[in-house]
Amino acid sequence: MLGKYLENVRTNCPLVHNITNYVTVNDVANILLACGASPIMSDEPEDVEDITSICGGLNINIGTLNQSSIKGMFLAGKRANELGHKVLLDPVGAGASRLRTKTATSLMDEIKFNVIRGNISEIKTLASGSGTTKGVDADVADAVTEDNLEEAVSFAKAFAKASGAAVAITGATDLVSDGDRCFVIRNGRPEMGKITGTGCQLSGMMTAFIAANPDNELEAAAAAVCAMGLAGEIGWKNMAPSDGNSTYRNRIIDAVYHMDKDTLDQGARYEIR
Amino acid sequence: MLGKYLENVRTNCPLVHNITNYVTVNDVANILLACGASPIMSDEPEDVEDITSICGGLNINIGTLNQSSIKGMFLAGKRANELGHKVLLDPVGAGASRLRTKTATSLMDEIKFNVIRGNISEIKTLASGSGTTKGVDADVADAVTEDNLEEAVSFAKAFAKASGAAVAITGATDLVSDGDRCFVIRNGRPEMGKITGTGCQLSGMMTAFIAANPDNELEAAAAAVCAMGLAGEIGWKNMAPSDGNSTYRNRIIDAVYHMDKDTLDQGARYEIR
Amino acid sequence: MLGKYLENVRTNCPLVHNITNYVTVNDVANILLACGASPIMSDEPEDVEDITSICGGLNINIGTLNQSSIKGMFLAGKRANELGHKVLLDPVGAGASRLRTKTATSLMDEIKFNVIRGNISEIKTLASGSGTTKGVDADVADAVTEDNLEEAVSFAKAFAKASGAAVAITGATDLVSDGDRCFVIRNGRPEMGKITGTGCQLSGMMTAFIAANPDNELEAAAAAVCAMGLAGEIGWKNMAPSDGNSTYRNRIIDAVYHMDKDTLDQGARYEIR
Repeated sequence: MLGKYLENVRTNCPLVHNITNYVTVNDVANILLACGASPIMSDEPEDVEDITSICGGLNINIGTLNQSSIKGMFLAGKRANELGHKVLLDPVGAGASRLRTKTATSLMDEIKFNVIRGNISEIKTLASGSGTTKGVDADVADAVTEDNLEEAVSFAKAFAKASGAAVAITGATDLVSDGDRCFVIRNGRPEMGKITGTGCQLSGMMTAFIAANPDNELEAAAAAVCAMGLAGEIGWKNMAPSDGNSTYRNRIIDAVYHMDKDTLDQGARYEIR
Repeated sequence: MLGKYLENVRTNCPLVHNITNYVTVNDVANILLACGASPIMSDEPEDVEDITSICGGLNINIGTLNQSSIKGMFLAGKRANELGHKVLLDPVGAGASRLRTKTATSLMDEIKFNVIRGNISEIKTLASGSGTTKGVDADVADAVTEDNLEEAVSFAKAFAKASGAAVAITGATDLVSDGDRCFVIRNGRPEMGKITGTGCQLSGMMTAFIAANPDNELEAAAAAVCAMGLAGEIGWKNMAPSDGNSTYRNRIIDAVYHMDKDTLDQGARYEIR
Repeated sequence: MLGKYLENVRTNCPLVHNITNYVTVNDVANILLACGASPIMSDEPEDVEDITSICGGLNINIGTLNQSSIKGMFLAGKRANELGHKVLLDPVGAGASRLRTKTATSLMDEIKFNVIRGNISEIKTLASGSGTTKGVDADVADAVTEDNLEEAVSFAKAFAKASGAAVAITGATDLVSDGDRCFVIRNGRPEMGKITGTGCQLSGMMTAFIAANPDNELEAAAAAVCAMGLAGEIGWKNMAPSDGNSTYRNRIIDAVYHMDKDTLDQGARYEIR
């Protein structure tokens, strides 16, 4: 069922504007190409409005924010809103510093986001200011497990309703909700956490998915999560014994490159609550 | 015939100063090392003049330009000109935003470039302001094909004459001209377009080629184009069925690493018009 | 004997704050994850103090310094000092430009570093201002060889004493000294010099090692050097004939990912002088 949303990315080839961190930006660009989209990166305030105008979606990731790029985020976001483009927020490290928390919450105040994607600690920070973010990885105490799943689903729905955006909370179990429904997704492998930037890559790819499927944001966001997790499973099967996290990074992007509608339809593992 | 220009890079080991975008910079550094050159990156205005002074060539790529790096581009370019160093311009996204177009054309006004390398849309923007750039990829309507080859060759020659720089227009068919002659190059594979930064990598490598072959700019630039395309062909042959664009990126750089004079002599496919 | 210092990284999982260059930052992040640590990157002055406060170590690398990130280096370093966190300096390109030399020496004046890691040219620049740095690679005339080893060991000890920091001088033969003792390390392969950023990666990993082994800085720094060199040896054994420097980069990080205490104990090759 979700495979068609990937197919639409390959058919529509959306151009995605990324204001993203310099740590993982190359992988974000390559995974966008792998899924059939085109990436363009620009964070300079004088440049971002023109660039976002020619794109179908905007991915704002605060991973290595600076004063100039923060200005760029606001300008690009507002222009994208004016043009009715899809906009995604990845609040990397919200809760880890006051600047990151303030930037993420101010962006939410001034820009309408279609999707907000982060780990549970980051999203809890945005929801309540009470999250305890250990750097850019989710606090273990906050992890979504089968034991607290019901509670986590309710939290995701409530945050989506309150924020007016679909929310994607990713981790061992992923949740994607628009406030009414919540996809509970069980694709992926724990070893993906040993690669820098799988979350950033997912945010880039998810922006392409919602841009290419404008009338099905929730399903498109869920499809991106399944595609990333499934690529992690396929990539892992292609690992040689001596391969480690650096090669695994390549194999995941490679798996997205080869993924088609049927593979995603058959490999996606989710329920809707 | 072109293999000797690669050999000279390996013998002379030019140090190349890159003011380039943060998306593909790591691959630019690795391909420079692969071809026998040494990379150094610096974009801070207070730093670039010293850095470019110790280098043999300067590669200016406007892919993720900002106010500070733009200043750095002008300062470095002028110093490189004073010192008689080779300077290359990669006008990434010219035509996609006013800032990029303005920066590229101002750089051309104030700095003498030895080579300008871009896709057809970017070069048309520089030539006439009439290009229609879709982000950083060439507009399909602008593609160089066998049908419009004669016209494209004339355009390349005219632009080279008008700009005073050799021009390299890369795409499915590549053109490299100094105004009098035009290399028409047919190396490469279409899948290279699914990797971010093959153009940026080529610009870095081309700067090394012209720095190591100062009296043969046109041939050196053409040799770099052939080397990149041939590496794309060799790298493709080394692909396993599950490999995709991320691994392909590595295999291309790896192929440059192993390329020698004879391989390039035998694999280069070009005519001169 | 040195394997336990790696084991402590895997047990303690230190969070490492990196203010590092945008060329090799992705590899730095992945090698930190490979050795069992967690990376976070932040260079914005308003952000760095909060970020470094939640970390166990700070890695300052001046590879693509700019006015803003320089401010961030001083602020983060001072805060890390206040908190008693481990701080490492990688003076990339010191001697290649006045700004780099001045920044590195000013950082040494105002911040207490636990370890300074660079190539011999960079360290000689810091020691005397007389180094002749050819870009970011060590000047060949300055290389540490078996012939000048005794002299180099004395230099390393003297610099460590004068600077108050342990010093790691890396090259074909690596020296790590705290002023009294000097590890002379012979792991590694010459082909590692054909990959961009093996030095930067080592600096990131070394910061994790000293953060996870706070009472054994010298041994921990030496263990990181041995681990990196040994990974270069193991990665090389895993190379296919067509693999080059880009794939080698992945194989080295992969080798760190799989390295355990026993592998490092058995593979480390060093003497103490």
